[in-house]
Amino acid sequence: MEAADGKILGVLGVMGPLASAQFMLRLTLLTPAGRDQDHIPAVLWSDPRVPDRTRGRQGGGPDPLPALLRGIAGLRRAGCGAIAIPCNTAHGWYEEMAAAAGCPILHIVDAAAADLRAAGLTPASGAGRIGVMGTAATLAMRLYQDRLGAEGWDCLVPSAEQMERLVSPAIAAVKANRVAEAYAPLAEVVRDLAARGASAVVLGCTEIPLGIAAGPTDGLGAPLVDTIDALARAAIRWARG
Amino acid sequence: MEAADGKILGVLGVMGPLASAQFMLRLTLLTPAGRDQDHIPAVLWSDPRVPDRTRGRQGGGPDPLPALLRGIAGLRRAGCGAIAIPCNTAHGWYEEMAAAAGCPILHIVDAAAADLRAAGLTPASGAGRIGVMGTAATLAMRLYQDRLGAEGWDCLVPSAEQMERLVSPAIAAVKANRVAEAYAPLAEVVRDLAARGASAVVLGCTEIPLGIAAGPTDGLGAPLVDTIDALARAAIRWARG
Repeated sequence: MEAADGKILGVLGVMGPLASAQFMLRLTLLTPAGRDQDHIPAVLWSDPRVPDRTRGRQGGGPDPLPALLRGIAGLRRAGCGAIAIPCNTAHGWYEEMAAAAGCPILHIVDAAAADLRAAGLTPASGAGRIGVMGTAATLAMRLYQDRLGAEGWDCLVPSAEQMERLVSPAIAAVKANRVAEAYAPLAEVVRDLAARGASAVVLGCTEIPLGIAAGPTDGLGAPLVDTIDALARAAIRWARG
Repeated sequence: MEAADGKILGVLGVMGPLASAQFMLRLTLLTPAGRDQDHIPAVLWSDPRVPDRTRGRQGGGPDPLPALLRGIAGLRRAGCGAIAIPCNTAHGWYEEMAAAAGCPILHIVDAAAADLRAAGLTPASGAGRIGVMGTAATLAMRLYQDRLGAEGWDCLVPSAEQMERLVSPAIAAVKANRVAEAYAPLAEVVRDLAARGASAVVLGCTEIPLGIAAGPTDGLGAPLVDTIDALARAAIRWARG
């Protein structure tokens, strides 16, 4: 592809490859298109061998940053004009990646905030309390709490007990292609966050929407923000903007 | 990614981007994996701006070959050791692409033949007559008829009337993200091929399985070979072999 038009989307898939593929699928389905040529040119760099982001961030594991930067360099060589990273936890290295990229990296938390606003779920309209589910590392890094907090939202997160018993095992199940068994534990946590007063629940790990999609999403007590879809919409806005 | 290990899969997505995304999804789901790092490193080059392959082959349209070769060069620069192309019609340029690639290109018709064999659907076992559905160009180029014919299978194809009234409009609907309306016309053609004596029907355009998946696939009268899945299985064999 030619770099000249600057509108090739780079997708850094250094994460669960199911989430990367689902992102490509949703990017396609959410794009208004009447034929192949209306779709967005994109290069997906899927390197599942990148060290585990959660372990890397929480200490003890190898540092994933060199592999992330390798992927970004590869996407830039391919002529990409912006980069989307459908992995929330990888955004813990956002500043380092953005400094190296030389092109915009669409931030997944900003994309989630745009979806909340589009649904009218703002602090000004009474939706000041938002549930956030994610990996233990995403929550510990306060990726959502700080970035949404700066815009007036108050973030509720699962308890440590819920993370260990429900959320973390469900994410691991999706990564091992066992999406069906991830539904019940994730649904239990969504219901609890809604009961604690969340006006919406952000599925802030791209494996979580895949698990939730394995069962009914009505009746969970709060609308859901799918961060795969939110990031795809942000990418389409960039490509069309 | 490092080119050294030679086991990075290149995916040339110069076709319906829905088929490319579906290929990445099926590649992931069909890979036996317990964690991210067990999955196959892959680079997807998705350039939907490539000129229409069917019109390019049937005359009148611009030649897609330069764009196909650009994609192959991009994948080789990324370090890919083999290339899969989840677009049947693009295989009309297979020889030119294979000559330029400098690495194996997994042929989608060979992948379909491997799936037929794995299902016991061989001429020797009485399944010598196989239905093939595809774009008008794929059928006119005799991609399946010649390559499966060389291995003893006899290919039945839809009539010109069925192509114009049912198959071609259904493929166009999938390319425009309208998968649901593609089901009925495609199912009608499968049933007719089965009634004409096909022991199996190869869905030899990667848009067709997406349309067929929008409705029930039992009761169509013959087992189906999904060329997206067949190519994903061939890629997994290559990566694990």
